[in-house]
Amino acid sequence: MAVRALVFDVFGTLVDWRSAIAEAFGRSGVPGDPEELADAWRARYRPILDEVNEGARPWGDFDELHLATLDDLLAERGVDLPAAERRGLMGAWHRLDPWPDVRTGLDELRLEHVTATLSNGHLALLVDLARHGDLRFDCLLSAELARAYKPAPEVYLTAARLLGFEPGEVMLVAAHPWDLQGARDAGLRTAFIDRPLEYGPGSPAREFDADVSAGDLHELVLHLESPS
Amino acid sequence: MAVRALVFDVFGTLVDWRSAIAEAFGRSGVPGDPEELADAWRARYRPILDEVNEGARPWGDFDELHLATLDDLLAERGVDLPAAERRGLMGAWHRLDPWPDVRTGLDELRLEHVTATLSNGHLALLVDLARHGDLRFDCLLSAELARAYKPAPEVYLTAARLLGFEPGEVMLVAAHPWDLQGARDAGLRTAFIDRPLEYGPGSPAREFDADVSAGDLHELVLHLESPS
Repeated sequence: MAVRALVFDVFGTLVDWRSAIAEAFGRSGVPGDPEELADAWRARYRPILDEVNEGARPWGDFDELHLATLDDLLAERGVDLPAAERRGLMGAWHRLDPWPDVRTGLDELRLEHVTATLSNGHLALLVDLARHGDLRFDCLLSAELARAYKPAPEVYLTAARLLGFEPGEVMLVAAHPWDLQGARDAGLRTAFIDRPLEYGPGSPAREFDADVSAGDLHELVLHLESPS
Repeated sequence: MAVRALVFDVFGTLVDWRSAIAEAFGRSGVPGDPEELADAWRARYRPILDEVNEGARPWGDFDELHLATLDDLLAERGVDLPAAERRGLMGAWHRLDPWPDVRTGLDELRLEHVTATLSNGHLALLVDLARHGDLRFDCLLSAELARAYKPAPEVYLTAARLLGFEPGEVMLVAAHPWDLQGARDAGLRTAFIDRPLEYGPGSPAREFDADVSAGDLHELVLHLESPS
């Protein structure tokens, strides 16, 4: 079965969240190492999504969840920060730069495949990121449309359904093994993109036995067959 | 309140459905005037959407509804047509050309505003139309995401919610008074685009007292204030 559509994880896979979030912490007056703060904030991401998926927490979009995890992080460290400053940090997630290969790589991939985001971030946030980075997709899809977060299978299946394809005709492009495994469990194809700098120079190495593996989107173009 | 996002009706407002559907009828072997057949098929569109909105008919996407209304039309005229031919006619709705101002007009409008479709057509169909016409939007939105058809208010309100704006910050751009009225009733702003050739040279004149009226998308650019 040919791959007809490519759906892309966004945070870490297409955009570099760490540099912009560290920079925002640097400007914020929050004491501590800005990169360590960025990592600590991001580390609270998977646990809070799990809470939502398990029903322990009501649905919240990324703005709400980022504010909640920031509040927790600052409380744990005894940092007092005005609400406007907290909202400013939350807003930094709307202005993340893409990795250098992404803008042109997406344009190349779109020639032969339908392209869409498939992010846990909500649509309004994805619109801002796509505009900020001048990234062109055929369509933006989000976990928000399934009202569950990746790696819940309904997120991947909702994306395939909305694009009008069988799960096996859709390939998730992502840098994170847990996300790729979720896609595979739902019947999608998988493309692993190595992003060794997501957590800075000392990022832990990742491996996933994906259908296709590539160092960036340009290399992915070479590994994909034309669907026609 | 400034207009932050423009959401576009698609069939008739951005793309010329009649020429391509008439052409497809011309090739199909269905007896009769191809343009009259196209108009007669399209005339069954609003009634079947009303059936869905009223709960008299289960949800169906545009491919399903186009097949159902085509079956009705051909049965009424006593025309026998193989299923593959019927699917071919249905597929013609995926390859409609935009009006001449649309591709560049959308690019201009996207400079200062978030742009999205807001069509009764389903997302997979909108993806095909956007790719076919090389139309760039920030996001594709569809009545499918509200599981109701325009002019039901939840369609317009779902679009505003997903874009992260208040209804009054979103403007529907459309050629059809019933759609503009639905948007206004839901609290959105309205832009009327005159498409005097939607039903060919003898199209009925339309009027709507919209917030903004324009002859095409380039003229709309001139009438909109920058939101910043």
